[in-house]
Amino acid sequence: MNKTTNSGERIARITSKLTEFRVEGILFFDMKNIRYLTGFTGSDGALLIGEKGNVLLVDGRYVTQAKQEVSECDIIEYTDKLARLALLISEYNMKVVGFESSALVYDTYLKLNNRLNNVTLEPLSEEINAIRAIKDTQEIDCIRKAATIASQALQFIMNDIQPGISERDIALMLESKMKELGGETLSFETIVASGNNSALPHAKPGSRKIENGDFVVIDYGTVYQGYHSDETCTVVVGSVTQKQREIYQIVKDAHDRALDAVKEGISCREIDRIARDHIGKAGLEQYFSHGTGHGVGLEIHETPAISAKSDDYLTAGMIITIEPGVYIPDLWGIRVEDMMVVESDGCEILSTVPKHLQIT
Amino acid sequence: MNKTTNSGERIARITSKLTEFRVEGILFFDMKNIRYLTGFTGSDGALLIGEKGNVLLVDGRYVTQAKQEVSECDIIEYTDKLARLALLISEYNMKVVGFESSALVYDTYLKLNNRLNNVTLEPLSEEINAIRAIKDTQEIDCIRKAATIASQALQFIMNDIQPGISERDIALMLESKMKELGGETLSFETIVASGNNSALPHAKPGSRKIENGDFVVIDYGTVYQGYHSDETCTVVVGSVTQKQREIYQIVKDAHDRALDAVKEGISCREIDRIARDHIGKAGLEQYFSHGTGHGVGLEIHETPAISAKSDDYLTAGMIITIEPGVYIPDLWGIRVEDMMVVESDGCEILSTVPKHLQIT
Repeated sequence: MNKTTNSGERIARITSKLTEFRVEGILFFDMKNIRYLTGFTGSDGALLIGEKGNVLLVDGRYVTQAKQEVSECDIIEYTDKLARLALLISEYNMKVVGFESSALVYDTYLKLNNRLNNVTLEPLSEEINAIRAIKDTQEIDCIRKAATIASQALQFIMNDIQPGISERDIALMLESKMKELGGETLSFETIVASGNNSALPHAKPGSRKIENGDFVVIDYGTVYQGYHSDETCTVVVGSVTQKQREIYQIVKDAHDRALDAVKEGISCREIDRIARDHIGKAGLEQYFSHGTGHGVGLEIHETPAISAKSDDYLTAGMIITIEPGVYIPDLWGIRVEDMMVVESDGCEILSTVPKHLQIT
Repeated sequence: MNKTTNSGERIARITSKLTEFRVEGILFFDMKNIRYLTGFTGSDGALLIGEKGNVLLVDGRYVTQAKQEVSECDIIEYTDKLARLALLISEYNMKVVGFESSALVYDTYLKLNNRLNNVTLEPLSEEINAIRAIKDTQEIDCIRKAATIASQALQFIMNDIQPGISERDIALMLESKMKELGGETLSFETIVASGNNSALPHAKPGSRKIENGDFVVIDYGTVYQGYHSDETCTVVVGSVTQKQREIYQIVKDAHDRALDAVKEGISCREIDRIARDHIGKAGLEQYFSHGTGHGVGLEIHETPAISAKSDDYLTAGMIITIEPGVYIPDLWGIRVEDMMVVESDGCEILSTVPKHLQIT
């Protein structure tokens, strides 16, 4: 196993913010955040980053693995996580400790709080998410690799999307191919939605068999070294009607316009507005029932949110999706999604399947 | 999509507890709990079960799907989940509302609490988990099916576990076979740990190639209609030493003794003690670095916990694992795990791969 070479740098970014956040240290329980900061890939543990030291706490299962994976923290074995954390905070004589309020469940907060005397637990949420939203080169490389694996897998099976094959079989072929090409696991449960199922933005692949003239929405991704990819292609099978062409083009243009606007400094709300206005001009706004995109990284949904209510702004190094869609109840739906790295004056698109209307 | 036939019965179980829990209703945010209670399989939403009515709140993506899947609740569409929930609680004039404190993150709790006037949010955790721990027939059938698919898949690929094949390739073959046999997704990331990797209880499958004399620990499972399976087999490849045989037998006997003790009414701590004492008698207790088992259902880890610190007792209808292990650092490890339904005077084992030492 490789130690995360950027662990020291990432921890330093957190440490440099402690004064601004008005805390003496920050507790991490979210395993994705712990992996990001330390390189530890286990399924349970806790991390304290603070002025007095950086400590990874793990249970007996993970001591050997933590020693292999982590170089920038002391490692402590616990039998009772919250008791050991409370002791550590007391040993370090800390009075104000930040925690990930968007990851810690209320119950754990309550139990930890009950164990602490004269210590304030300070909720931090956007602050921590904002740090992880901006990816370093090592992270961008992992996501580029995940996106490439996924796109290649879909292109490999594209010609098999023919009348008679079931949604589930398409998903299975795609997933096997992604694994074969080096994908670790799925980014999320693959969506393959055909015919009137495609009118459900998040349909699960079922036994429905593809028919001539179907739209097939395929929303899929894989994971490489913990980092996710996300892409959606909508293809049409056999023959295509004028109406299908028209609405596909509206969604595709909404996608292209939003994508053209992506660069450092623009508000996420503005990106959403550009896509939504284009679909709205065609009188279809009511059928675009979700946000335009989201950040992607160690989790499939991360900061920033690209929606009408978002307060986020794009920064170079963010990895985001642009994914407008139109879903006409009981008829069919279309979604077109790419994933990209935000740059100072534009973006680099990571998903590689062409987004013109493909007829299989 | 099929409506969950037991939705009404499960909601009634919650409603019948409101007085005991001293609340007028309970809010659910955990999508597994919402699926359990309503049959809704979407990825976002909220549910209020209360004296004044049962309401599922979903965003625009999920209205059509919710109407197809849910029959026992009113369905309300929201654009802002917490705002709509606060309005509903106010419309119903509720004063004390329970919530799942082991599922709701602190941040959401805080935001919801800030929107409510003169309403007490009452944390409920064990209370709700205890209800879901006892499975009805429909749930047991799903888990039995998941376990059968998984065990059949492993037995199908068992003879391919030979020198030269990599851990990752074994995982890939197993996962493909589980999907082919009807598994929806993986219960968790498959563990295939060979040789000295098997000394890490939660190693990820890597590029290491199997060698003659290796122990290979395979911890794996699949999902059927949302329900998980969990089983671990440790096989030895080619030749086996006397020491390997001896320690395998100790782990197997610890597993068998714990399993023999499983029945309604016994404390989970006692089950753990039986397995731990047997391993301890051989002087290996320090190498058994995790609990003896856990509940399984819509999540891979549910109530009850079977560990030295558990306060849980077994009840008929619980589905649990028994999975003692011994891990000798830098050498190798062994884990033997079955999954079973607790019955009034014993249990029914659901995982079907034989647990004697198999030499491939």
